[in-house]
Amino acid sequence: MIKVLVIGAGAVGAFYGSLLSQAGAEVSVVCRSDYDQVKQHDFIINSQALGRWNFTPAQVLKNVTDFKGTPDYILLCTKIIPTLDRVALIRPVVGRNTSIVFIQNGVEIEQEMLNAFPNNELVSGLAFICCNRTGPGEILHLAYGRLALGNLPNGVSLKTAQLCELFNQSGIDCGAIDNIVTGRWQKCVWNAPFNPLSVLSGGLLTLDILQTQEFFVRSIMQEICDIASAVGHPLPDDIVDTNIENTYAMPPYKTSMLLDYEADQPMETEAILGNALRAARRVSIVAPHLKSVYALMKLRELKLEQH
Amino acid sequence: MIKVLVIGAGAVGAFYGSLLSQAGAEVSVVCRSDYDQVKQHDFIINSQALGRWNFTPAQVLKNVTDFKGTPDYILLCTKIIPTLDRVALIRPVVGRNTSIVFIQNGVEIEQEMLNAFPNNELVSGLAFICCNRTGPGEILHLAYGRLALGNLPNGVSLKTAQLCELFNQSGIDCGAIDNIVTGRWQKCVWNAPFNPLSVLSGGLLTLDILQTQEFFVRSIMQEICDIASAVGHPLPDDIVDTNIENTYAMPPYKTSMLLDYEADQPMETEAILGNALRAARRVSIVAPHLKSVYALMKLRELKLEQH
Repeated sequence: MIKVLVIGAGAVGAFYGSLLSQAGAEVSVVCRSDYDQVKQHDFIINSQALGRWNFTPAQVLKNVTDFKGTPDYILLCTKIIPTLDRVALIRPVVGRNTSIVFIQNGVEIEQEMLNAFPNNELVSGLAFICCNRTGPGEILHLAYGRLALGNLPNGVSLKTAQLCELFNQSGIDCGAIDNIVTGRWQKCVWNAPFNPLSVLSGGLLTLDILQTQEFFVRSIMQEICDIASAVGHPLPDDIVDTNIENTYAMPPYKTSMLLDYEADQPMETEAILGNALRAARRVSIVAPHLKSVYALMKLRELKLEQH
Repeated sequence: MIKVLVIGAGAVGAFYGSLLSQAGAEVSVVCRSDYDQVKQHDFIINSQALGRWNFTPAQVLKNVTDFKGTPDYILLCTKIIPTLDRVALIRPVVGRNTSIVFIQNGVEIEQEMLNAFPNNELVSGLAFICCNRTGPGEILHLAYGRLALGNLPNGVSLKTAQLCELFNQSGIDCGAIDNIVTGRWQKCVWNAPFNPLSVLSGGLLTLDILQTQEFFVRSIMQEICDIASAVGHPLPDDIVDTNIENTYAMPPYKTSMLLDYEADQPMETEAILGNALRAARRVSIVAPHLKSVYALMKLRELKLEQH
C-alpha cells in the first residue's frame, strides 16, 4: 500500500490528502493546530463539486518525528514563510526512496530543496483550487481543484505519474507537466498582482480590482513575464490577456493572501513577491510596479507586527 | 481695517485666521461642522510654541453667502477633494478687489482658479505646519507653522507682502516667494511618498516608513522631481537627499492623509498624486512608483466606499 505523509494539513493539505486516501493510499497527516479535533473526529470535507466525506488519516501526528514508518511520498503543503524552515521540518522523515512533493505557492522555491535533498526525487506541485478551513478539521472546497505536478529540475518520473493517476482516480484533474518551474512562473502571473492588491486595498475582491485598475494589474503581470523570460522560463505571448479574461469570467474571489490577512496569519509575501524580485535583480530586470507593491506589503507587515 | 474671510475653518484655517486676528485684522470664518460650538464659545487654540488663546471671529458663518461685506482677502483652507467645487464655493463673496489666497495641498491646483477669477489677485500658499482639530472649535498646534505665499502666475504683489507682514507680526514665519508654483512641487516631493505610504501601510509613522523603505521613498521623490522639471519647475539637485535627511531628523509623525484616513474623512489623493500623474502624462514622463501608489490609493478608497 502506498504510504503518504501530508505535512501541513491546512485546507489544501487535508483536501488533497483525503483524495489520495479515497483512491486507496495510506495517508497520515501532521496537523498542529487542529490535532485534538482531527484525532477524535477526523477531517470533514465539504466539496461543492464532489460531495461531503470524512477523512480518517492512518496516523494523526502533532510532530513530524512522531511518524511511524517511511513514507513513499511526502506531501508538503505548508505556507512558505520566513519563520518556517521547510528543510528542517521534513528532514526527519525523508527516507532513501521518499519522493518529496511540495504543493506550495511562490516562485524560486526549488533550489533550497534541491540543495537539501540531492538524492531524493523532488516533485513540485501547483494547486489551482479555492478551498478554506472553516473550522477545526473542517475544510470547505469551493471551486476548481486542478493539480499540476512535475519533477525537478524537469521531466516526469514514473512515481510522479503514479501519483497523478491516484489523484485522477479520486475525481480531481491532475496533470504531469515537463517543465513545472515554468508552470510556477505562469501561476505567479496571477498571484503577483491579485494577492497583494487584495490585501493593500483593505479587502477588495478580484473583480473590483480588475474593473478599476486593469492597467495596473497588467503592468505587474507583464513584469512577472519579463522576469520569467530572463531567468529562462519564457511564458506564452498571450498569457497576460488570458489571465485578464479568465479573471473577468471568474466569480469575484478572495485571494489566499487576503484570507491569511483577515485571519491574522502570516502572508506569503516573500515566496511570491520577494522571490520574484530577487530573481529580477539577479538578471538585472527593472520591475518598478512589482517593487512598489512589495515595498507596501513590507510596510503593511511592519505595521501588523507593531500591534 | 483689513477684512479677511476664512473659508474652511478646520485646523489650518482656524489657526492662521486666529493669527491674523491677533495681528489686528477683522477675521470672519465659515465653518460648517463646528458652527454651533464656535458661534457660542469661540475657537480655542492651543499652541505648544505660542501659548493658548481664544479666537473670536468677527462673523461666524454657516454658509459663504451669509457673509456681510466684501473681504480684502479670502483665505481658502479647505481640503481639495473631487466632491468640493472650490470655485463655486467662494464665487459669491469674491469682490473686485478681493485677493484670493488658497492655503491648500497638492500640485497643479492653480489653473482652475486662474480660469475662474482672471481679474482677481490670486495668491497660492503653502503651510508647513503640524496642527490638528482635537474637538469642536479646538485646535492643537503641535509644531512648525511656516507659511510661503506667492502670486500667480508668479511674483509677489504689495498686497501679498502686506499679508506676509501681518503673519510675521503674529509670531509665525511667513515668506513671500517669487515662484510659488515651484514651491508647490517642492512640497509635493515629501507629500507624494509619505502621505499615501502612511495610509497604505495601515498607519505607520514617517520614521518607520523611512527606516525600512528609504529606497522606495526616494524612487517616488525622484519621480516628482522628474515631473516638476518636465513641466517647467526644476527643483534643486539635492532636494531628495535634503528631504530624506530632514525626515530622519523629524519626530515620528502622522501625515495629514493618515489623520484623514483615521477620521474617516476624504483624502487628498487626487490633489497630490492624481494631479502629479496627470502632469506626468502631459509631458510623457513615466512614473511607475507613483502610479503604483496612486492605483493602490484608488483601490483603498473604493474599498472604503463599499463599507
